[in-house]
Amino acid sequence: MTDLSATTGVTDRPSGTAQEPGRGNGNPDPIRRFLDQQNPETPCLVMDLAQVRDRYRQLRTALPDARICYAVKANPTPEVVGELIAEGASFDVASPGEIELCLAKGAAPESISYGNTIKKRRDIARAHEQGVRLFATDSHADLVNIAEVAPGSQVFCRVLVDNTGSKTPFGRKFGCTPQQAADLLVRAAELGLDPCGVSFHIGSQQLDPAAYRHGVDAAAGVFADCAARGVRPRMVNLGGGLPAGYTETAPPLADYVTAIEQALDHAFGPQRPELLIEPGRFIVGDAGVLRSEVVLVTDSCDGQRRWVYLDIGRYNGLAETEGEAITYRLRTSRDGDQEGPVVLAGPTCDGDDVLYQRTHYELPRTLRGGDWVDLLSAGAYTASYSSVGFNGFTPLPTYCVDGDQRP
Amino acid sequence: MTDLSATTGVTDRPSGTAQEPGRGNGNPDPIRRFLDQQNPETPCLVMDLAQVRDRYRQLRTALPDARICYAVKANPTPEVVGELIAEGASFDVASPGEIELCLAKGAAPESISYGNTIKKRRDIARAHEQGVRLFATDSHADLVNIAEVAPGSQVFCRVLVDNTGSKTPFGRKFGCTPQQAADLLVRAAELGLDPCGVSFHIGSQQLDPAAYRHGVDAAAGVFADCAARGVRPRMVNLGGGLPAGYTETAPPLADYVTAIEQALDHAFGPQRPELLIEPGRFIVGDAGVLRSEVVLVTDSCDGQRRWVYLDIGRYNGLAETEGEAITYRLRTSRDGDQEGPVVLAGPTCDGDDVLYQRTHYELPRTLRGGDWVDLLSAGAYTASYSSVGFNGFTPLPTYCVDGDQRP
Repeated sequence: MTDLSATTGVTDRPSGTAQEPGRGNGNPDPIRRFLDQQNPETPCLVMDLAQVRDRYRQLRTALPDARICYAVKANPTPEVVGELIAEGASFDVASPGEIELCLAKGAAPESISYGNTIKKRRDIARAHEQGVRLFATDSHADLVNIAEVAPGSQVFCRVLVDNTGSKTPFGRKFGCTPQQAADLLVRAAELGLDPCGVSFHIGSQQLDPAAYRHGVDAAAGVFADCAARGVRPRMVNLGGGLPAGYTETAPPLADYVTAIEQALDHAFGPQRPELLIEPGRFIVGDAGVLRSEVVLVTDSCDGQRRWVYLDIGRYNGLAETEGEAITYRLRTSRDGDQEGPVVLAGPTCDGDDVLYQRTHYELPRTLRGGDWVDLLSAGAYTASYSSVGFNGFTPLPTYCVDGDQRP
Repeated sequence: MTDLSATTGVTDRPSGTAQEPGRGNGNPDPIRRFLDQQNPETPCLVMDLAQVRDRYRQLRTALPDARICYAVKANPTPEVVGELIAEGASFDVASPGEIELCLAKGAAPESISYGNTIKKRRDIARAHEQGVRLFATDSHADLVNIAEVAPGSQVFCRVLVDNTGSKTPFGRKFGCTPQQAADLLVRAAELGLDPCGVSFHIGSQQLDPAAYRHGVDAAAGVFADCAARGVRPRMVNLGGGLPAGYTETAPPLADYVTAIEQALDHAFGPQRPELLIEPGRFIVGDAGVLRSEVVLVTDSCDGQRRWVYLDIGRYNGLAETEGEAITYRLRTSRDGDQEGPVVLAGPTCDGDDVLYQRTHYELPRTLRGGDWVDLLSAGAYTASYSSVGFNGFTPLPTYCVDGDQRP
C-alpha cells in the first residue's frame, strides 16, 4: 500500500527574498518544478507547504481575534499538520485517528477541538484521557456521554443553518434548532460541563459571504435564550466554508471577513463573542496540484464529444466530483493547441467513475494517451478520500515541497 | 493501516455432512458464530468462503458450457481469489494490481481476462509479458495499443446495451455501437489479433433477467456483420449483472439461466457461440456480513424520525449506498423489540455520509449507542471501496471463515 506520507522536500530557489502573498519567497512554481524534475509516477498529489503557511497567515491577519482550528479532514498529510502546528494553529478533528495524528506531530491537546457531533462514548473518554477538553455536540445522547466520560469539558452546540450558496451543502445530518441548542447548553451546565458556545456550518465551498449572517444570528439567539436561563455561552464557532479556487469565481477573503464583521455587529453589537473558525479547504485547497496521466482518448458512440480517460477518478482521489460539485481547473502537456469539448472519466470499470459529463470542459484536440493533465487547487478532500484499492488501483500518494526552502 | 487481508479461519462444525445450496455442510451460521465468539472491533466484514464456493458451483452447474470469470473488483480479498482458483474459476480483472493479485494466489495467466477497456499502453504490455492473452476493447486507440504491445492476443469488443432494470446502471462510459464493434473486430483481424468475440454488460444487480436479450441480440448482429466481412468471432461474453440479496426481491438464478438460454436460441439458433460470464456480486455478495456499531441515536430536528449513526458509512465501505442504490438487509442486537422509522447515517463529518434517508427503514426503538447492526449480503463492493482514512477512520478490515471446515 502506498505510504500516504511520502515526502520529498524539493525546492529550487534561495530563500531570503521578500514574501509575497500566495507565493512564499518568490519561487515561481515549486510544484511544477518538482513534477518536471522528478517526473513521479501518476497519479499523485503534490503539496506546497509554503502556500499552506501563507494561507494560514492571511487568515490570521484577516481575523486576528479568531482562534483558527484547521479542519484536519481536508488534508491529513502529516507534514501539513506539522507546518500548521509550527504556525500556532489549533485543530478541528473528526475522529480518534485525527487526534492521534495531531498529537503525534506535537500538537498540544488543548489546541484540539473534537468537532464531530457523532462520537462513540469510548472515543470521547479516550480523547479526554489524552487531554482534549473541547467538544462539539448537537444531541442529548452525545451530551450525556461527554458529561459522563469527559467531565467538566467545554462543549459547543451546533445549530443547523441554511446552506444556500454552498457547492457541497450539508443536508440535515448535523445540527439542531436554536431552541434545542439552548436547551442542550442549559442542560450541559446542569451536568457540570462548560457550555462555552454555539457553532454552525454554512456549507463547504460557500460562494456567498452573506451566508454567515444566518449562523451568527442563530448563535446570538441561542446566547440570548441561554442568558435568560442563567447560562452564558461566550464563543461563536464560524465553522468552515471559505473557498478554494475551482473553475467558478469565488469572492476574495476580504469579502468574507467583511461579511463576518457585519454579521457580528448586527447580531452582537459591542458585546463581541470569542471567535473560532474551522478552515480546511481554504488552507490547503490551492496549495496542491494533482498530476494525472491520460490513459486513453476515444470518440464517443454518438460522435459528439471525445472521452478523455485519466488515471485519476472518483475512487482514487476525486470523490468531490460526485454530482460534478467541485470542478477543478485543468492544465495539460498540450496547452496552447486547439481545444474541443470532452467528457472526462476515471480509470475504473465503474460506470459512475465519470468526472465531468454535464459540466462543459474543453481540452486540446491533440491530447492522447501518455500525456499529463494537472488538476489545480486539488489540495483539499482528495488523497484521504482514495479507496484502499478499488479495481486494484493504489491510493493516491502525496508529496510535499516547500517553495520557501533553499534547493 | 489495517491489513485488508486479515484472516481468521474460524469454523465450528465437523465437515462431511451433505452439501446444501447456499449453506455449505450445514454449519448454521459460521459468520454469526465468528462474530459472537470473537467479538471483533467494528466495523468489519466477515466472509464465509464456503458460501463463495457454493455460489460458484451453483453457477457452474447452471451454465456448464460457460467459462466463469470472477470479477475480482467485487471482492479482492486474497482468500476469496484463492478459493475460486481452487474451484477452477477464471478471472475478470480491471487493472495491473488485480492481475498481480491473481498471479500471486496461483492463477494461470491464461485464466485471466483483462476486462477493462481503459488501459494504459504499458499496462497492456506488462499483462502480455505476464502471459495474459485475452483483452476487452471498445475503441480504436485501445485496439492499436493491444495490437502493438500484445501481438496476436484475443480481443473481444464491448457493445453498449440498455441497462434498464439495473440498480446501478453503467451510463455511457463503456461500449460502442454494434456497427463500431464489427469495424473494430475486422480491424483487429487486420492487425494480427484474434477477434474472438463480443461482450456487453446489462448493468450490475440487474433485476430483470430479460435484459440479456438486448445484449445477445446485439452480439449476434455483430457476429453476422463480421461474418459478411470474412471475420468470424466465436465467443459471447455475458458480462455481470447477476444479483445478490438486498431488500428488494431478486429473481432466482434459474430465471436468469432460462432467459440466457432463450436469448441464445433466439439470436443464434443451433449455432451456439462459446460463452463467458463475469459474475462478481452474485459470487461474493451474499457470502459477507458487515458488522457495525451504533455510535449514537438522536431525535431529528423535525421530531419525525430518529437518526441512527453507525460506525460504517459511505467512505469506509458503503459506497454503493450513493443515491441509495443498494439497500442492505439489516439485523440488530435488539431484533424483536418494537420498531420505528429511522434515518441511517455514517460516522464522518461529511453531510453526504448518509446511507438511507429516502428509503424507508425501521429499526428497534430500543436501539442505542454500543449496540450492533449487521448489514447482510455485504460481501460485494464494500471493503475495497473504503477510503484510506477519510476523517481519520481506518479502512474496513475483512475476516474470512469457512463454514465447511472443522472447528
